[in-house]
Amino acid sequence: MKKIAGGVTAPKGYKAACAQAGIKYKNRSDMALVFSEVPAVAAGTFTTNVVKAAPVRWDMKLIKEEETIQAVVLNSGIANACTGKQGDENNEKMAEMIAEVLKISKNSVLTASTGVIGKQLVMDAVSRGTKQLADNLCDTLEAGTQAAKAIMTTDTFDKECAVTLLVDGIEVTIGGMCKGSGMIHPNMATMLGVITTDAVIERTALQKAISTAVKSTFNMISVDRDTSTNDSLMALANGLAGNQKITADSKAYDIFYAALLELLKTLSRMMAADGEGATKLFECRIIGAASSEQAEVLAKSVITSNLVKTAVFGNDANWGRIICALGYAGEVFDPDIVDLYITGKEELVFFEQEEDIVLKDALKLVENGMATDYSEETATQILSLKKVTAIADIKMGEATATAWGCDLTYDYVKINADYRS
Amino acid sequence: MKKIAGGVTAPKGYKAACAQAGIKYKNRSDMALVFSEVPAVAAGTFTTNVVKAAPVRWDMKLIKEEETIQAVVLNSGIANACTGKQGDENNEKMAEMIAEVLKISKNSVLTASTGVIGKQLVMDAVSRGTKQLADNLCDTLEAGTQAAKAIMTTDTFDKECAVTLLVDGIEVTIGGMCKGSGMIHPNMATMLGVITTDAVIERTALQKAISTAVKSTFNMISVDRDTSTNDSLMALANGLAGNQKITADSKAYDIFYAALLELLKTLSRMMAADGEGATKLFECRIIGAASSEQAEVLAKSVITSNLVKTAVFGNDANWGRIICALGYAGEVFDPDIVDLYITGKEELVFFEQEEDIVLKDALKLVENGMATDYSEETATQILSLKKVTAIADIKMGEATATAWGCDLTYDYVKINADYRS
Repeated sequence: MKKIAGGVTAPKGYKAACAQAGIKYKNRSDMALVFSEVPAVAAGTFTTNVVKAAPVRWDMKLIKEEETIQAVVLNSGIANACTGKQGDENNEKMAEMIAEVLKISKNSVLTASTGVIGKQLVMDAVSRGTKQLADNLCDTLEAGTQAAKAIMTTDTFDKECAVTLLVDGIEVTIGGMCKGSGMIHPNMATMLGVITTDAVIERTALQKAISTAVKSTFNMISVDRDTSTNDSLMALANGLAGNQKITADSKAYDIFYAALLELLKTLSRMMAADGEGATKLFECRIIGAASSEQAEVLAKSVITSNLVKTAVFGNDANWGRIICALGYAGEVFDPDIVDLYITGKEELVFFEQEEDIVLKDALKLVENGMATDYSEETATQILSLKKVTAIADIKMGEATATAWGCDLTYDYVKINADYRS
Repeated sequence: MKKIAGGVTAPKGYKAACAQAGIKYKNRSDMALVFSEVPAVAAGTFTTNVVKAAPVRWDMKLIKEEETIQAVVLNSGIANACTGKQGDENNEKMAEMIAEVLKISKNSVLTASTGVIGKQLVMDAVSRGTKQLADNLCDTLEAGTQAAKAIMTTDTFDKECAVTLLVDGIEVTIGGMCKGSGMIHPNMATMLGVITTDAVIERTALQKAISTAVKSTFNMISVDRDTSTNDSLMALANGLAGNQKITADSKAYDIFYAALLELLKTLSRMMAADGEGATKLFECRIIGAASSEQAEVLAKSVITSNLVKTAVFGNDANWGRIICALGYAGEVFDPDIVDLYITGKEELVFFEQEEDIVLKDALKLVENGMATDYSEETATQILSLKKVTAIADIKMGEATATAWGCDLTYDYVKINADYRS
């Protein structure tokens, strides 16, 4: 498996486009389209929030009922959530408009919206955007990047990634894009993500791969503990690579899954690092856990703690807050044997295959539940880096997990105290 | 039942004191003592955090094993958490020192600490403080207030309250003090609270009253979702009022409980309003719930949402975030029938017996899951008040609950990015 340039248009047979529809933002693109030249099997995971936006309800139905899907249309600016019957009608109308210009059935068009809750889509703008999308549709890598830019809200950079792998000697490509930033605490999926692949893969196998991979990737990110009404991760597989069909129990599945996992991890790191107001990527790794589930719960508790996040912002090795966040996670462990380390990196690297954490290079802050005589200066230096990792060894077993978050800053407050105006 | 002046020294037979021990802070008091002239039955609830500070472990043992308690010593500045065996020894030593000057057994002395995690108590300072406490011990209301001031950390005002009630014609008094501010998400208790009463009450009845009352008071507050290692609520009842003994199934219990509940609610409102960096008290009331449990979970989800809290700070009626926070709380309800209102008060009133929420005076933002045509100007005006209440009617039954929180502000980030320095 290796990383290549591009995103959703990297695999064979995919086109993408962006449009300046003027739904909410001025002077920037706000609609995106991803299109497979041939019908593709599709899979998806969606928010567990009881309050589900109109596009989420639409997609869940389509993913369940339709054999194939051919397009995903996305808009930023308005979430089309808490918009009642009108919202459902507008969403269906958006799918219909796209279907018309692409000459496909509206039931082949997945939809996704992100932005302010409670406002209706402006259908004139959507109509204007649809025409532009049709005109701009293109299979270049740049078209994929432009689509990734169009779905940004408070994101500061576009998020895309692509990898290739060999399935029985045949090259298969997976691409993806997503947007994150605020209201990020995915539960079954995250804000908006679209994965494309040219793999030949059974629909059930694709769904299994997506559902499994999100558990240790998108579901392990948190910016602010707020699970959105619009979380959607959708995957299309159009089969143009021509490999032998991947089924859920084939050996090729494991290879495909491993590549998908790295792709989603990369996108996860991007979303965490670009959390609203974030100045750094903050990662927590639990080692020595009794089970993966325990490790996941503990890791996520640390990266979601406001007190830990503000300390990370302040470059303050206030490790007591980390131990405290482990303590209230709801998992049983012995605080008196916990070791805690920090380490960091000067530059953000989003794509990196799971490295072994080299504990000897990390600074040990706590040994058996109590402070070591670490240097506060060294600790502050590590905490000032662009990527900070806290590692807790709870010495109960062999299981591990990593969760990704960011610091809590003045800018998070600024952005969110003033979001709608 | 009526509110009277004072706090822990309001009931008969209690003295209090503060001291400038110099444990961490300069030029302010940092130790407090509450003393009952006669042995008192005691009850308590403590943090559910797996990581429990030394004083919490000490108190849990004493509350369980000792028939009576006579004193509570508290310090601010250092939490004595994650301090190992040394921490336990220092804590016991603090109890011993206090016992010596009061000429009682060390097993009659409860302890409580709040402040930085991971640092050892400075025993020289504790010794110095103990002497001052002995000298300053006094039964005036002012002494109670001084004790309440000594346990503050980042609190901006001291928190105390007292009420009187009649039990079979005999006047009984309950007093209380607490500190809150940050790392406030009590679970079974909150940071530090001491309740005193001169009621004659069975130990089991006192424990029942405390354990029940915290569920709808201290456990319904959140400043930052961080459950501390030191949460402790301790109650002493010395029997000097001379009423007929209150047992758990007596009619007098209900009267006592009702008064205790109002006292704890008052202290809860104080803690929420004085959350770190808070500019206002933010309250969420759920009505029409199927059960109290459901109402509690939903109310707490709203007041703990960072996105709701920043919107409240920005006086922005971003109701979508409230509906979203209800949606991810983990309770099932129908978002399409939810009504949402906001109302507010110009001044903070901490003591107020549960008013009926007058919906007709509130601004209806959402009806059946969708925006009404409310005036944004009026909404902003309400959100600018010192106390803001969001009321959600989920139309499933008759149960209600209220949770108390505050806004999330620049100052929260400032205080916590820079706490230890």
